[in-house]
Amino acid sequence: MVVRDEVRKMKTVAPLVAAMSNEARCKALKCVAEKLAEKKDEIFAENKKDLEAAAENGVADAIVKRLKFDEGKLRDVIAGINQLVTLDDPIGKITLDRELDEGLRLTRVTCPIGVIGVIFEARPDALVQISSLCIRSGNCPVLKGGKETTFTNRILFGIIYDAVIEAGFPEGCMLQVEQHNEIDELLKCDGLVDLLIPRGSNAFVRYIMDNTHIPVMGHADGVCHIYVDKDADIDKAVNIILDAKTQYTAACNAVETLLIQRDEELIGKLMPKLVKALAENGIKLRGTKEVIDKVDALAKTEAGSLEFEAIDESEFKEYLALIVSAKFVDTVDEAIDHINLHGSHHTDAIITENSEVAERFMQLVDSAGVYQNCSTRFADGFRYGFGAEVGISTSKIHARGPVGLEGLVTYKYKLVGHGQIVGDYASGKSSFHFKDL
Amino acid sequence: MVVRDEVRKMKTVAPLVAAMSNEARCKALKCVAEKLAEKKDEIFAENKKDLEAAAENGVADAIVKRLKFDEGKLRDVIAGINQLVTLDDPIGKITLDRELDEGLRLTRVTCPIGVIGVIFEARPDALVQISSLCIRSGNCPVLKGGKETTFTNRILFGIIYDAVIEAGFPEGCMLQVEQHNEIDELLKCDGLVDLLIPRGSNAFVRYIMDNTHIPVMGHADGVCHIYVDKDADIDKAVNIILDAKTQYTAACNAVETLLIQRDEELIGKLMPKLVKALAENGIKLRGTKEVIDKVDALAKTEAGSLEFEAIDESEFKEYLALIVSAKFVDTVDEAIDHINLHGSHHTDAIITENSEVAERFMQLVDSAGVYQNCSTRFADGFRYGFGAEVGISTSKIHARGPVGLEGLVTYKYKLVGHGQIVGDYASGKSSFHFKDL
Repeated sequence: MVVRDEVRKMKTVAPLVAAMSNEARCKALKCVAEKLAEKKDEIFAENKKDLEAAAENGVADAIVKRLKFDEGKLRDVIAGINQLVTLDDPIGKITLDRELDEGLRLTRVTCPIGVIGVIFEARPDALVQISSLCIRSGNCPVLKGGKETTFTNRILFGIIYDAVIEAGFPEGCMLQVEQHNEIDELLKCDGLVDLLIPRGSNAFVRYIMDNTHIPVMGHADGVCHIYVDKDADIDKAVNIILDAKTQYTAACNAVETLLIQRDEELIGKLMPKLVKALAENGIKLRGTKEVIDKVDALAKTEAGSLEFEAIDESEFKEYLALIVSAKFVDTVDEAIDHINLHGSHHTDAIITENSEVAERFMQLVDSAGVYQNCSTRFADGFRYGFGAEVGISTSKIHARGPVGLEGLVTYKYKLVGHGQIVGDYASGKSSFHFKDL
Repeated sequence: MVVRDEVRKMKTVAPLVAAMSNEARCKALKCVAEKLAEKKDEIFAENKKDLEAAAENGVADAIVKRLKFDEGKLRDVIAGINQLVTLDDPIGKITLDRELDEGLRLTRVTCPIGVIGVIFEARPDALVQISSLCIRSGNCPVLKGGKETTFTNRILFGIIYDAVIEAGFPEGCMLQVEQHNEIDELLKCDGLVDLLIPRGSNAFVRYIMDNTHIPVMGHADGVCHIYVDKDADIDKAVNIILDAKTQYTAACNAVETLLIQRDEELIGKLMPKLVKALAENGIKLRGTKEVIDKVDALAKTEAGSLEFEAIDESEFKEYLALIVSAKFVDTVDEAIDHINLHGSHHTDAIITENSEVAERFMQLVDSAGVYQNCSTRFADGFRYGFGAEVGISTSKIHARGPVGLEGLVTYKYKLVGHGQIVGDYASGKSSFHFKDL
């Protein structure tokens, strides 16, 4: 397959998909959900092939867990599709309706972005979620999943594609590419692909961003911070830190850096509990010398097995593992400056009972998500009530944070007149009156 | 000046500017307007130096017209600032307010993008407009204007900067760079500059896009089309084509390609009038052989001095001159396909009295602006009632079309809880209820 030729065909099909009615798009989704349920045994059989290959190749258990597509995951993706059907149509919303002059009417209408390339990790449920979001929002996806789920992806894509065609979508409205080298072909399709959404490792996303002229939405790093203020509730702080680090350690919204106010009372109360909790959960602490000096003193009496290491704060980074960095800061403003300069503008939390300090933090921290007294792990499209997400964006352009349907739409301006020319407005013969309707 | 160091300082100042109240931002704008009026003689004196240098260097008259900053232009930019003050605050708008669960509240709030690099042509009024839009929207601009207006830019920037500082903005909230090589330094400031807006020639914008990892908003080409349908009002068609070509020939929203329905009656009525009008206005026609054959026959009887040339449609392009391409198409769908594949997704118009055909065109043409029965020249922030524009975007990501205040904002998600962790939702101990407030 020559990717460019297929994508070029898709480009001409995309406006037709964009013009499909809300009913037609919802019908297609229902059709997808039905077919997935009907063909579940075939899907599981193909998934077994991927799992067998993974076992042969000695793939790690954590990854195998993601590859697996079973009754539970099928139920979840079907529930997701059904939820998408109930959401408001993101397309065709009039967001501006203005009479520029008598008989010259400007409207701004939301519409699909068009052709979207999504490159995602080896997770069959991701293929279904991304496809569903694209169908709901009238976009044409080019899908490239992880190679470890080739068999499962192939049957899932086939089922979804057949279902949308049966529901009246035009041929060529979805495309799957399977070969890794086809990613490079896709990256060269600027002018045809409107948006790329890469998901995966920092290095992979960076590679995509560095090797294409197509706009890219997503995130490379996820260096999330938790700042513990002197007015923090200590138990909330420890509990939230543990959840943010351990609930899904490899996630981009897991916490990587703790900033703790340099307050004697806070440090006196927090550190023993924190050290104990980290030790019990097998989390290694990489702190500045000042932090480690405190920990060292505590470790002798309470921490037992806590593993720790003194590092320079310039070595703080995204671990995606049971390791956390820590340093003390004098004020909330020092925490804010650290986060804005060293963070990745993903999700950062403050733990405090002081609402004034919390407001300052949430106002000045320049991240997609700014939280008070809850875990950074909440940064997720499903948990925000978006039904699903195609990814999380740390860019400030277009969509920011978890990206659901709203991030998959753009708009166009429609202007209807009856022969108006700009010359008449330039000469003063006509003039604008700008009436919002 | 080391641009990176200055921009790094600006990055830490940007959240403070983002937190300025609506009143403070409006006060700053009023202060700018007052100071500009007060210091007009000094401004005109500096502008005279630029004009003298232009005369010495033999700069073309059309460009000198843009360099000139006189009473009229000063009045216009001050009127623009006063209009901006009256517009709704784009910052701090709550666009989502949702209780995820009891005591866990998610809000989405609009906020400034942050640090924005704007590289613009030699037009002093552009410097004032862009600065004003950034002040109104709480953004920190790095401004690089055309070298032909160095003296004028320097004094204007100084006046604006002093005014905003006087109004309480933090030091370093605006930056001007003057050297061409500093553009390359700016392009390397990814992670510090959030958005680049280049204005200027196709080649220049393309250079910026190809040499930075910072998101770029703008447009390279502006290949705008007018499609004349068989149900067109002939006089409207000719009048609109002339306006779209001649009212400001060098503008990105000037028409470059005419698509005319291959309908005997239409061609019979339209072509004589069109040929005559083009000839009278000194517009050269570069048509397909079929078009030129028709024109040739007409030229003998009516056109007189019409200059024309037969070319292949693959040679159609952006002229920014008194030249227009033309070809015949069988249907509106053929016109749509041509525009979607060969256009630049800027602004495209249909001339027809048939509303069904117009709707099809406006639905399926994938451009920032789709017009019926009016000139493509209306694609402009001022004419849309946005007060001013920082540029026009042909991207479908973030802002599309003329970009005013709304295109200079992003949003952040704020989540406030009282100790909630994701583990409790994963285990089923807690569950989301998603209530929009």
